[in-house]
Amino acid sequence: MVKNMEEIADRYFDCNDRERVAFELGIKLGALFHQFVGAPVSSENLDVLERAIEKTTERQAFVKRAEVRIKPIGLKKRTDSVFHDYTTLSGDMLDATVEVEYKGVKAKGRLRYIEELDYPLMYLESIG
Amino acid sequence: MVKNMEEIADRYFDCNDRERVAFELGIKLGALFHQFVGAPVSSENLDVLERAIEKTTERQAFVKRAEVRIKPIGLKKRTDSVFHDYTTLSGDMLDATVEVEYKGVKAKGRLRYIEELDYPLMYLESIG
Amino acid sequence: MVKNMEEIADRYFDCNDRERVAFELGIKLGALFHQFVGAPVSSENLDVLERAIEKTTERQAFVKRAEVRIKPIGLKKRTDSVFHDYTTLSGDMLDATVEVEYKGVKAKGRLRYIEELDYPLMYLESIG
Amino acid sequence: MVKNMEEIADRYFDCNDRERVAFELGIKLGALFHQFVGAPVSSENLDVLERAIEKTTERQAFVKRAEVRIKPIGLKKRTDSVFHDYTTLSGDMLDATVEVEYKGVKAKGRLRYIEELDYPLMYLESIG
Repeated sequence: MVKNMEEIADRYFDCNDRERVAFELGIKLGALFHQFVGAPVSSENLDVLERAIEKTTERQAFVKRAEVRIKPIGLKKRTDSVFHDYTTLSGDMLDATVEVEYKGVKAKGRLRYIEELDYPLMYLESIG
Repeated sequence: MVKNMEEIADRYFDCNDRERVAFELGIKLGALFHQFVGAPVSSENLDVLERAIEKTTERQAFVKRAEVRIKPIGLKKRTDSVFHDYTTLSGDMLDATVEVEYKGVKAKGRLRYIEELDYPLMYLESIG
Repeated sequence: MVKNMEEIADRYFDCNDRERVAFELGIKLGALFHQFVGAPVSSENLDVLERAIEKTTERQAFVKRAEVRIKPIGLKKRTDSVFHDYTTLSGDMLDATVEVEYKGVKAKGRLRYIEELDYPLMYLESIG
Repeated sequence: MVKNMEEIADRYFDCNDRERVAFELGIKLGALFHQFVGAPVSSENLDVLERAIEKTTERQAFVKRAEVRIKPIGLKKRTDSVFHDYTTLSGDMLDATVEVEYKGVKAKGRLRYIEELDYPLMYLESIG
């Protein structure tokens, strides 16, 4: 039985520690987006969903911290609609910061909608 | 602009109120399962995920109440594993009760793993 | 061991056959939406994703037929963007028709974006 | 308007090209897992789902190739069950290889269930 993360690194990975931490950070941001996009949201449950995304992310390997904000885009605006204040979570609504650490190397990544790109970008803010 | 649910029923649905409430209940159970299965779980975040599934379900149209329990199957058992106390949510772990109401007709449905079927069954417990 | 669907109906369900078929139809539409919303799409993979959604839906209990069209909303328009022709599947892009049958009772449901509602509605088109 | 990927790298990323490619590879594997786990599967639709996962992955930025195999775990075995040959996709069933390239740096990653870990591991097989 493989007993620790170092043994897993030796057997399965072929990269340095900085590349490993970048890889792990990418996994967490990709997971977070594709797991929760589509979830039903309204103004009244944004906070509970933010906390759930943070806690499920923080329990994954190497994650030090996750902070999630959901922007209420598309909510509260359709005041004359029967579906007022209800939509499903889209990538544009998410602003997530995730910090990971592996063997002393830290990396910080973010997912957020960037206006000049008209796109929810996942990027590596800092490493090392 | 369509102003209320009754107008939507007239224009788009062709069924009676009991069939409608059964249909809406099915939607909620199917949504809940397929949105959240795959989410990262550990013993320490089960409760926050339970609350998030309840709250996102309760904000959907016609839902009166949602109660969710996640059974910690596959957690805490792999004590000699580096992935001890970590897994992803599977249908077998979910026990969800959802109550909906439409025009005075109530229905109660459930999703839970049933041992004699070896299957996470979605069923309609009561209606009317 | 439970051997057939009738035994399952007797033990777990408390509704008539029409209500059952409406419930099953709701499950399939809720599942389809929440499983696939968020999937990466471009003009070039719409058809393979349509077929996958159809085939995974058709393999579920009681489904007779599923037909899925994905409208290329948000694709091909951002010609000056580096993310030209790439987005993630949203509910507004989906047009799905699902037919189910249980004990001779048929029902047909649909999920599609309805302009006057500004909403991707799941509705029961016909039953019986 | 940001016109190309290099400009995006300059503005938003702070890492070298090898770390970038590792990050992008992680995103794709995390996305793939969390988007498709939970999908309804039977022996008869494994291939169409494999192709859909490959094609949706290949359309993402920097991906050169994706190859996906779904192992029919839990299918065809429950011969006395009414749910014979039907289950939902779990991480253990997936064997996916993804190759990405960024500015001439290539990386190859894999997601597969590893028996000695009793875990579906995402790992970086090679880079550079």
